[in-house]
Amino acid sequence: MDAIQKSLLEQVADLHEVPEGAYNIRANGQKAARNTTANIDIVSKEDKDGIDIIIKPGTKNESVHIPVVLSQSGLQETVYNDFFIGEDCDVTIVAGCGIHNCGVQNSEHSGIHTFYVGKNARVRYVERHYGEGDGMGENIMNPTTVVEMDEGSYMEMETTQIKGVDSTVRTTKATLGPRATLIIKEKVMTHGKQLAKSDFTVDLNGEDCHTNVISRSVAREDSKQVFLARINGNAKCHGHSECDAIIMDNGVVAAIPEVTANCVDAELIHEAAIGKIAGEQLIKLMTLGLTEKEAEEQIVNGFLK
Amino acid sequence: MDAIQKSLLEQVADLHEVPEGAYNIRANGQKAARNTTANIDIVSKEDKDGIDIIIKPGTKNESVHIPVVLSQSGLQETVYNDFFIGEDCDVTIVAGCGIHNCGVQNSEHSGIHTFYVGKNARVRYVERHYGEGDGMGENIMNPTTVVEMDEGSYMEMETTQIKGVDSTVRTTKATLGPRATLIIKEKVMTHGKQLAKSDFTVDLNGEDCHTNVISRSVAREDSKQVFLARINGNAKCHGHSECDAIIMDNGVVAAIPEVTANCVDAELIHEAAIGKIAGEQLIKLMTLGLTEKEAEEQIVNGFLK
Repeated sequence: MDAIQKSLLEQVADLHEVPEGAYNIRANGQKAARNTTANIDIVSKEDKDGIDIIIKPGTKNESVHIPVVLSQSGLQETVYNDFFIGEDCDVTIVAGCGIHNCGVQNSEHSGIHTFYVGKNARVRYVERHYGEGDGMGENIMNPTTVVEMDEGSYMEMETTQIKGVDSTVRTTKATLGPRATLIIKEKVMTHGKQLAKSDFTVDLNGEDCHTNVISRSVAREDSKQVFLARINGNAKCHGHSECDAIIMDNGVVAAIPEVTANCVDAELIHEAAIGKIAGEQLIKLMTLGLTEKEAEEQIVNGFLK
Repeated sequence: MDAIQKSLLEQVADLHEVPEGAYNIRANGQKAARNTTANIDIVSKEDKDGIDIIIKPGTKNESVHIPVVLSQSGLQETVYNDFFIGEDCDVTIVAGCGIHNCGVQNSEHSGIHTFYVGKNARVRYVERHYGEGDGMGENIMNPTTVVEMDEGSYMEMETTQIKGVDSTVRTTKATLGPRATLIIKEKVMTHGKQLAKSDFTVDLNGEDCHTNVISRSVAREDSKQVFLARINGNAKCHGHSECDAIIMDNGVVAAIPEVTANCVDAELIHEAAIGKIAGEQLIKLMTLGLTEKEAEEQIVNGFLK
């Protein structure tokens, strides 16, 4: 891997060296490196681009890193990654995509990730998207995440899109079995003429299952964001969704949650708030010696932390 | 008017006698009674069914009642009522529709009400919908309300659908000028196989305008409700919407708010909560000697008050 690819890796996966545990690094559409462990197998798909990640039942405190970097302008790829997480596992999965595009053509990565989370398994899934490059070509990422959660399983998804992604449609569909819990934390910052759309659908099908979908977003300059969150309570369940957005400059944010109780024992709550940074907050920091710009940065960083 | 019509009038307009002030009573598609005052004129439209209500600038503490009753099964009508409310008025407008349907055909009333609210005028608009009758024919009401609010005007809408309306699509579209305020309070209770859909769109176009859309609903038995509220912040403005719903039996409720900030100085908030009556609340009332059914009634009545 070259210096640009290494720097992208740092941005999306906090990786300076090859990671510990299992990993699969994809660079410019090719397998750049792979490691498997006694409990975690990674197998290339034969019918299409992508990998199967198979985690043995009972695997604890292990991690899988599967970052993707694109530094070749104009590359467009769709990759299918399937995660089979055995019963009683407790694992961390780190995915991410970094694009460096200095050309005039669009670069595009669409990852379709499907998680089969076994009984009583616990998964922490971290996904980070980052783009850079001063070319005219756009950086486009359309991640799809499908989650099927078995009885008593727990999954925490942290997705972050910090910078440089020109266009993204993020689709997440989850189905929860009995006593399953899904926590989704999304952070999106857009700038320039970027467009970001997040589209969540969570079906609360199992008795006593629970979801919490939390979105924090900042839209700067002329960027646009749309946040859709559909929560369907089809059983005795708890569902909560909240969307907090800061708008700056000419940024536009639309929040469209949809909560539907199809069962009398479903409890669903939604909250959304959109607004600019409060003047008092800015003034407080400015009296401490910060410029208006610095004060804004500090507030935005704290908000997205 | 006969006894059935008089009883409908009571339900929708709290009227035992002819009201004071201006009124227009419509019964089975015909003008049953009308009164105008020095400040409030009512004129039948010539090109279609309906009336123009013209309120002189500066009219204070006057009221207009325009109830509609249908006791003839199978009657289907669309009525256009336009309200021209002059500058600096302070008036109360009471509308409502009561249907008594003992036949096998559907009875249907669709009222299209358009309000032109003048500068600094204040309007309280009360609308009540009620249906009854043990026939096989359905009672259908599809009210459309269009509101155009001039600078500094204030309007409070209270709409109530308590009982007996089999199918309703309630559409409200409002456009607010500078410093205008629109408060919407909706109460809906459905039962049986009823379907109720509320669809609000509020465009906050004028500087320092403000809206608050509050919906409280109860869905019992096999009834379904959909609540849509679109608030578009197109200027420096405040928008708030909240939807609280109680579900009982097999009732289904979907809340789909949509808040969009198209201006950096727009502040928009939405909240929605759907759930059944909390067990502790029921138990508390039952320890005071109420049956479960009575306790439920009391809680529902309090919620919709």
